[in-house]
Amino acid sequence: MAKAETLKPRLPRGFPDRTEADLLAQGRMLETIRQTFDLYGFEALETPFVEYTEALGKFLPDLDRPNEGVFSFQDDDEQWLSLRYDLTAPLARHVAENFDSIPKPYRSYRAGYVFRNEKPGPGRFRQFMQFDADIVGAASVAADAETCMLMADTLDRLGLGGQYVVKVNNRKVLDGVMEAIGLAGADKAGQRLTVLRAIDKLDRLGADGVRQLLGPGRKDESGDFTKGAGLADEAIERILAYVGFEAAPHDGADRLAFWEKFFGSWHAVVGESETGREGIAELHAIMRLCEAAGYGHDRVRADPSVVRGLEYYTGPVYEAELTFPVTNEDGQTVRFGSVAGGGRYDGLVGRFRSEPVPATGFSIGVSRLFSALRLTKSPLVEGAAKPGPVVVLVLDRENVAEYQALVARLRAENIRAELYLGAAGMKAQMKYADRRRAPAVVIQGSNEREAGEVQIKDLIQGAQAAAAIASNAEWKAARPAQVSVPVERMVEAVREVLARHFG
Amino acid sequence: MAKAETLKPRLPRGFPDRTEADLLAQGRMLETIRQTFDLYGFEALETPFVEYTEALGKFLPDLDRPNEGVFSFQDDDEQWLSLRYDLTAPLARHVAENFDSIPKPYRSYRAGYVFRNEKPGPGRFRQFMQFDADIVGAASVAADAETCMLMADTLDRLGLGGQYVVKVNNRKVLDGVMEAIGLAGADKAGQRLTVLRAIDKLDRLGADGVRQLLGPGRKDESGDFTKGAGLADEAIERILAYVGFEAAPHDGADRLAFWEKFFGSWHAVVGESETGREGIAELHAIMRLCEAAGYGHDRVRADPSVVRGLEYYTGPVYEAELTFPVTNEDGQTVRFGSVAGGGRYDGLVGRFRSEPVPATGFSIGVSRLFSALRLTKSPLVEGAAKPGPVVVLVLDRENVAEYQALVARLRAENIRAELYLGAAGMKAQMKYADRRRAPAVVIQGSNEREAGEVQIKDLIQGAQAAAAIASNAEWKAARPAQVSVPVERMVEAVREVLARHFG
Repeated sequence: MAKAETLKPRLPRGFPDRTEADLLAQGRMLETIRQTFDLYGFEALETPFVEYTEALGKFLPDLDRPNEGVFSFQDDDEQWLSLRYDLTAPLARHVAENFDSIPKPYRSYRAGYVFRNEKPGPGRFRQFMQFDADIVGAASVAADAETCMLMADTLDRLGLGGQYVVKVNNRKVLDGVMEAIGLAGADKAGQRLTVLRAIDKLDRLGADGVRQLLGPGRKDESGDFTKGAGLADEAIERILAYVGFEAAPHDGADRLAFWEKFFGSWHAVVGESETGREGIAELHAIMRLCEAAGYGHDRVRADPSVVRGLEYYTGPVYEAELTFPVTNEDGQTVRFGSVAGGGRYDGLVGRFRSEPVPATGFSIGVSRLFSALRLTKSPLVEGAAKPGPVVVLVLDRENVAEYQALVARLRAENIRAELYLGAAGMKAQMKYADRRRAPAVVIQGSNEREAGEVQIKDLIQGAQAAAAIASNAEWKAARPAQVSVPVERMVEAVREVLARHFG
Repeated sequence: MAKAETLKPRLPRGFPDRTEADLLAQGRMLETIRQTFDLYGFEALETPFVEYTEALGKFLPDLDRPNEGVFSFQDDDEQWLSLRYDLTAPLARHVAENFDSIPKPYRSYRAGYVFRNEKPGPGRFRQFMQFDADIVGAASVAADAETCMLMADTLDRLGLGGQYVVKVNNRKVLDGVMEAIGLAGADKAGQRLTVLRAIDKLDRLGADGVRQLLGPGRKDESGDFTKGAGLADEAIERILAYVGFEAAPHDGADRLAFWEKFFGSWHAVVGESETGREGIAELHAIMRLCEAAGYGHDRVRADPSVVRGLEYYTGPVYEAELTFPVTNEDGQTVRFGSVAGGGRYDGLVGRFRSEPVPATGFSIGVSRLFSALRLTKSPLVEGAAKPGPVVVLVLDRENVAEYQALVARLRAENIRAELYLGAAGMKAQMKYADRRRAPAVVIQGSNEREAGEVQIKDLIQGAQAAAAIASNAEWKAARPAQVSVPVERMVEAVREVLARHFG
């Protein structure tokens, strides 16, 4: 190929490569999550990355034109296919497709990449991983309580105890509030969704920003204008009063009485709305169940500001927030924020069936959670680092078969090892071993070969010694961290080096 | 949603769902492969599913119009993106993009799904998994020898020892044969590719089918005509003679002498071709290295019928074949066949750079290999089955919080357990527990609650007893496999049931 035709090697934006250190550390995090979900009786499921576009539906939040949020292409029969944008819509399709053969309630967990055709940015990818747990076929709020407890237990087992809170709300309460301010009825569905998404931005925009989005609209820093819900001032203040209700930390023995009083005060805000009162009763029941199972206010609590952006939620909604402080892009100190969220979506499986099928579940944002574990220096991810392989150097290329036999000997004893396969000289081979983080190298020159010996060089001890020894001459005389042993003692000598540094 | 609008839940053809039993068993297989690759000093890498279409190139075999083999779509800047169709092209892009920061030779392993926009069929999916190992930056055939040994060791560690052979050839030998029959030169590249792909079908079509494809062409059972390479009879017979060379099993002590003689006989077929002779010398060197490292003819051997369909191979090519017999779709007994294959592709990274970058590696077809382990009843995959969760039944719904507390107690002791969350009665709950393969259920009616007790029912022993006891009355009197214990002994009693069946 002519040089002029050389391609530029590059990835599309928002699609990252991942290397070993990250993959190993994240693998340990994923395995801990998996074990916790398994303990709760959830079962593994994997659905493909590609689905019929119509099966996925249009449920992406924050998009006026949801089709733009997914990657789609046509099959050879001209039907539209899409890359999945979450793991919930494919679960709904799977359950509907295999309805009679699945024992219900069905507890399913799934982990995998999803795709969003959105503008990428810092920490915002177009391919990212989710880890979901769902219970399908259980109408009882006991199922929502279980998923909230599972969220809490998962974070505890990841070592984040005391640094998170699972916040629970109920869409029905919010529907009640909206009913009370005159936003009931099918013709107001669009307006209700606008209200929902405005509240969902409370964390980011503060009360003033949300007030604008509930009213005429809001112009952001870039000058873009977002149309508002067009509510009257009185209605706006009523919504803001409701989402501002704070369940103050309360660790006394009378916590159930506390919830009684807390929810009692909510009744005013939903007025006479049946839906609203039902929502409060459900939320109260979830809190009672969590309390009874030993999950106190410090781990699971009601919070009216949680709404979740997705349109398909029909009842309880919940999210897990990490509470430790971090510095954001603008230099402000903020809470780390949400790492998982979900809720009840009784209509999603029902899209495929003549009857509704109740379901509830949540999704963990894997890369958000992983960066939280990195930030908190979690031993789970920090402990994933491992040494490189033992490198057998090649001093004379004609004898490569004999070096290969040395490598085979190490591997047969389960010692991670490799033959240097490049064309470089001794010095460059040592540099290669350093870059691979090799704990040791095995060296055999012609003298050693004749004597039936090999040299084992401990690179970790060698680096420590090099820092301590001043002159090159002194170094050569001492030859620290280097031993000559008969070939049949090679494995033993390498094991000694590994034991010295990795126990 | 009105009933008339109900969607049909279905997956596009060739995109399967996978459930727990399969995922767990395959997970054990993948972990064994990963550990073997790790032992050889290979490092994990993950590239995204989406790449620029031009970065992937057009290297799919068996397609006249390669673009049709991939799923592609346009980005918002109108550039074409594709789902990766293998794990080799993305590796080439990754190495070229990060060339200076990667220590070379670079040993990389990658596992993941790839996508082919082809007609699906039995055992032929449009999304399927590959597991690859590659060495980039090593021109020496010692690298090819190492990948061949890695293939062999991987299959040994999967328990397939004695049931496989790694077959090795060299594209340069074949190029020499073609040179000798007048197919040299850039203008004959298309014809050479047609010859290659004809030989690649030897297993499937036999010598007669290949003879037609090397000559005027071949009409298949469906009447479709494939144009041939248009070679003269003499040239055809020369190629067929070459690919028919069989390295007869040979377990004597003079194996190196055997290879000497074997390769000596190849020289005639490549005539004076320099490329051909170079190819034979390389192949001979690989055999010598494998022999020296203890990989005999029974595990790694030269075989001229191996060509691999991909256009980008430039030297050694190799594949791992499982040799045990299976019955094919037509009822014939055949060898199980290839489960992994690869070769040297010195030009692939070079597409992105001004100099060539040598590379060699192979790809395991994960689902083929998995079905082989299923067929051979491998303990690795058979042993992956695990019991379902202990199910705590719910007899009166008002006390669900107390049942929830029982579940929490079991989970706190790391016993996989769940609360029954449906709305069904006692009998249906027992049926649910059976379908979940629960080893035990925990039952607490109002009498037990007052007495502070629970009943533990051993479902596995119960099923065995039910098969032995004749009458219903006798059953009720005996109540086999069922004990009442105080609540504080529940965990202990459940542990006894688990120990009884799972040790």
